[in-house]
Formats: sequence, C-alpha cells, structure tokens
Amino acid sequence: MGAWGKREDMIVYEADPYNAESAPDALASRLITPIDSFYSRNHGAVPVIDPAGWRLRISGLVERDLELSLADLHQFTPRTLTATLQCAGNRRAGLIRVRDIPGEDPWGPGAISTAEWTGASLAEVLRTAGPKPGASHVAFCAADIAPEADPPQPFGGSVPLRKALADEVLLAWAMNGHPLPPLHGGPVRVVVPGYIGARSIKWIERVTVQDHPSDNYFQATAYRLLPADADLRTTGPGAGLSLSVLAVNADILCPGDGAALAPGRADITGYAVSGDGRGIARVDVSTDGAQTWHQAALGEDAGPWAWRHWHTVIKVPPGRTEIIARAWDTAAAVQPESPAQLWNPKGYANNSWARVHVTAR
Amino acid sequence: MGAWGKREDMIVYEADPYNAESAPDALASRLITPIDSFYSRNHGAVPVIDPAGWRLRISGLVERDLELSLADLHQFTPRTLTATLQCAGNRRAGLIRVRDIPGEDPWGPGAISTAEWTGASLAEVLRTAGPKPGASHVAFCAADIAPEADPPQPFGGSVPLRKALADEVLLAWAMNGHPLPPLHGGPVRVVVPGYIGARSIKWIERVTVQDHPSDNYFQATAYRLLPADADLRTTGPGAGLSLSVLAVNADILCPGDGAALAPGRADITGYAVSGDGRGIARVDVSTDGAQTWHQAALGEDAGPWAWRHWHTVIKVPPGRTEIIARAWDTAAAVQPESPAQLWNPKGYANNSWARVHVTAR
Repeated sequence: MGAWGKREDMIVYEADPYNAESAPDALASRLITPIDSFYSRNHGAVPVIDPAGWRLRISGLVERDLELSLADLHQFTPRTLTATLQCAGNRRAGLIRVRDIPGEDPWGPGAISTAEWTGASLAEVLRTAGPKPGASHVAFCAADIAPEADPPQPFGGSVPLRKALADEVLLAWAMNGHPLPPLHGGPVRVVVPGYIGARSIKWIERVTVQDHPSDNYFQATAYRLLPADADLRTTGPGAGLSLSVLAVNADILCPGDGAALAPGRADITGYAVSGDGRGIARVDVSTDGAQTWHQAALGEDAGPWAWRHWHTVIKVPPGRTEIIARAWDTAAAVQPESPAQLWNPKGYANNSWARVHVTAR
Repeated sequence: MGAWGKREDMIVYEADPYNAESAPDALASRLITPIDSFYSRNHGAVPVIDPAGWRLRISGLVERDLELSLADLHQFTPRTLTATLQCAGNRRAGLIRVRDIPGEDPWGPGAISTAEWTGASLAEVLRTAGPKPGASHVAFCAADIAPEADPPQPFGGSVPLRKALADEVLLAWAMNGHPLPPLHGGPVRVVVPGYIGARSIKWIERVTVQDHPSDNYFQATAYRLLPADADLRTTGPGAGLSLSVLAVNADILCPGDGAALAPGRADITGYAVSGDGRGIARVDVSTDGAQTWHQAALGEDAGPWAWRHWHTVIKVPPGRTEIIARAWDTAAAVQPESPAQLWNPKGYANNSWARVHVTAR
C-alpha cells in the first residue's frame, strides 16, 4: 500500500477489503483532499499491478482494438481536472437512523472527497479506437476480484457513450500531482466526474464499447435505487434505478453531530455538490427548525466537477440546537427534506437536508 | 392570430398580453400537445412579422456575421425533436397557497406543454458563423416589446455556449408539422429543451455570441430564484439564481383538485419531466399521506427532452382522499416535499410533490 491511504483519523468500517470514510476535519480543512485522507470504498482486495506490465485493452464496437501501456497512455494530451468523487452510500447513516439496513456500512458525511486528477481524456482514446455506429455505452472492467459479487467477478460498470465522449472523463494516472497510489486505483483508474464513485473504476484494464449498459454485478444488481418496499430476496438484475448522475447534496462537516460547544457564536462548515456539471447556487442554513433560513458564504469555485465548501456563523444559545443546511444547484434543484422519504433497501442516494445537533453549556 | 391558439378550454389569466394555461384534460389526453392547447406565456403583444421579410442576424464574437432569411434557414439540415417547454412559473398556485405572491398569475399544473419542433440546429448555424475564442454565452433577442420590462425592451435571454452548441437546441420554424404560428413565436423561435420556457425565445431576430450572460431584463432581473426573505424593492439585476435548467417536476392532471368521484377505483394521470436530458426513472403515488408509495406506470418515452405521462389506479374510499405523487429522475433526484419550503418572492420553480384532494360519495 506504500505510504498512502491509511491515516489514523480515517473512520474504518472494514480492514479487508479496506473501507474507510474521511475524517470530517480533514475534508473541511482543504478544498483538495490530501491523498491519505481520501475515502476508500472497495469490494475486494487491492490488486498488485506492476505499472510496467499494465496494459489497457479497448475493444468492442470500435474500428480498431487498442492495447496501451502506461507509456502509450502518456502520449495522449494530459489533462488535469479537479473532481469530487462521492460514494452512492455517502450519508447512509441518516437512512439507517430511520430504519436499519442490514449488511451495509453506516457511512456518515465523509464518503466523498475531492482530488486533482491527471490523465488522458477517455474521449481522445475512444476517438483513436473509433466507435462504430450502434455504440451507445462504454463499459469498464477492473483487475480486482470482488468476492461479494454473484458470481464473483472483477468490479465493473459503464457510462453512456455521450458521457464517455465528454471532456471531463479521464483515464487518470495521477492524483494531486502524485502517481496514482494502488489504494486509489493505480496505476490507472477511470474518473467519471458527476457520477457515483462506483463508475470511476479503479485498476482499469478493459474498456469495451457496446450497444447496452454493463451487465457487471455492480451495475446490473448493485448500486440500484429500489422502492422502499422492494424485497431484496426477489429483486434480480435490472430492478430499480441504475444510479449514475449525482443529485444535489450537502452535509455539515464541523461541528459534528452531538458536539458540545460554548454558548455564543459558532463556525459552521460543510460541503455541497451536484452532478451533470451543475454548480452550487446557494446554501441555506437554519437554526429554528426550517422556519427561516440564511445564506452561507460559498468557498472557492474549482470548476463544475468540484464540490463547494460553505461557511457561516450562527449564534448558539445554551441547550440543544439543531443546525439544518440545504443546498440548491444551478438548476434550482434543492435537497429534499426528509431521510424517511428517501429510505431504500440498500441505503443509497441520501441527499436529504443536513442536520446536526449541538449542545452548548 | 389565425386559427391557432385560443381554444375555449384554455385557462386565461390575461387577454393582452395573452397568458393562458393548458387545460389539464388536453394535456393528459396526448403526449404531444395540440397547437391550440399549448400554453402561452407572453410579456407583450404578439408582434406581426411578415415571414418573407423576416431576417435573423447572428453577430458578436463570431468569425463572420450572418443575416439569414427563412429560405436561408431552411438550407440547414432540418431536425425534428419532441420537447417539453415548461414556464418557470408552472405550479405557482401551490406556492400562493402558502403565502400570497402579488402581481403574479396563479399558474396551476398546465404552464407546460410538449410539441414536435422542426427547425435548424442552432449549433450548425453557430458553426457557420464560427464562434471566436472567448465566446461563452449565446444571447437571443426577440421582435416584441415587453412594456413590463424596466426599461421597456424586447424579450431576451441567453444560454451558455456549451448548451447552444448541443444538438437539441433548435431555431424552429414548425410545430407539430405546421408552420410555427405567430402566437407560439412564428415565423421562428428558439427551442431550448430542458431549460425554463423563457429561454425558448419567440419571434427571434438576433443571436449574439458573447463572453457574458444576457443583461436583458428577463434574464438579469426577472426569472430569478430569490431567498424567501428577499425584498423585491431592493433587489436589482443579478440577485439570486438565474433560472435555467429545469429540476425534476411532476403534477397530477386527472382528477383535478377538488374533484368529486364515485367511491371505488379511480384512474390517476399526470406528467413528469426533468432537465439536462435526464429521463424519468420512477413515479410514486401515495394515498396514505406519504406513509407508503406505489409505482405508477410510465407512458411512452419520446426521448430525453420530452415529459413522460404516467398512470395508475387507486382505490378511493368514501370521504376525502389526498392523492400525492412524486417523480424521480435518472439522477435519483426526487421532488422535494413541501411548497412552504420552496416559497420565493416571485413564485418560481415549484417542484414540490403533486397533491390533489378528491371527495367520493
């Protein structure tokens, strides 16, 4: 694993496969998350890949198959992009408080992080291969083996060809200016800004241009939004909504839920993010149970694929105070109010209002 | 006005300028709204334009200015697209029930309609003119005069260059296979699928490629989402969020609010729509106050820029029943719950859950 990826303040749900949430303070302190604070969501062991022997195979509905070494990939125009990745299970803890979700980790606000990714534009690589008429999806397949898949298989997934040909999708070999560490997908991972993290496939080895979405377990069965009353014992591949583009979301990073504060003025910091390259237009904060809202100050705008930090100061009276925040994106989409109304059997896509309770004495 | 546009069942808010909402039954009965049932939102009188004398001027940050007649425009590859237009004020009535919005019409569920538009791709026209480096927005200006603007000026607005260069934006000369009627923008209007109707500028005469958004009154001052506590007397140009891409929305068309039904089974029909080319993934219906939901059947999918009709059958007991519906788009974005939490001083962008009350006896 090298020097990267396992800071002591990470909130670790599983050691193997390594699944760990970023510490809220680490996320709050910088727009770009340091590599060793970046969240980790894995379905199998980190594969050991010799960068010198690594090859990327591009095939399927293309005019010419490609097999690229890392040196070949470096021949494409390098692009650097600030992009936030968010796990579909980010903020699941808020759903679990409504009703238990057995077998799924209770991610808090930190299954999200932001990095500067450097790599080749997937679009440029695909144009070199030449998508054939009828191509409509681009599937990715990794080098790992995920034992929890049914049947066990490498991690995979796909995005529509239209997205794959957009400027912002990268085959990334660097993260924050460093060679991509194995824990975060090195030597090369896909970065699909604005989509659930599961589509930014680590340890990428195969890209297949095809006329249908991926039938990999992690797209056809996992990472799907089911109605609240769906029975997981009887839902098979293709049920529900295949999670892809992210809806507007936000959470409070500091103070944490349950924090004890001194009465008086308190700094509140959080993040807000949306998909589709939508910006964040406004973040509202309330301390009176959503009767009135005031607008937080938005932090640096690092482009359409990055989160925005936000900050405000509230007055905390002695006793218990609930702090609520909600974000609006540039499409005037606002977070929905209640996690109870978003509850779903796999605990995905909780973008309900952010709420923390603090006590001042 | 000719034969088009003023069916007797339209819900007319103003005769001059003509502002009228489509009848729910007319919207429910067909995926494509008939021309004479299509909603009308106007800020000035319908201008009288001789199609033979009409010219479209393209200028600004372009390599070559263009001046196109209708015959010239027809030389571009004709494209036909099914697209829904939705006024930013659609469903304002739901906000007015929370708190009055003086001076604004109380649009119900019918400030939305869907047509098959035929015209030239704006992208193709712009590529002929050749956007210069630095171009980032494309502004539209109409032939009408809007007396309510401050100062009075033609209707106008802009979209980002990235959207203007997308396939789906048209300079449309036909609607449902007929020459575009004057009431709906003839001889030529812009159609910007997935955006608020105000950007689909009727009676288009000037297209300006520029490095900033339009400073026209209807973009810089009107059609902006302000915080609930904003003071309209002191908010000037640039305040709040400039409405553009549409968020997920839905409403119930039949039965209407307050309808009297026979107890027993009742058919429920509505529409759902989203922006950014997102599809509708699911529509939930509840008759027990959002404690449980069941999924409605989705109607024909006419592509990424068209609404989806939906339909379900519920059991209506004697007495009063509230029917609630909410749509999810393919980004797992769901409508927010409460209009009270969306109230804003100009009454825009109400995409809260659809609710109608019916009484059975």
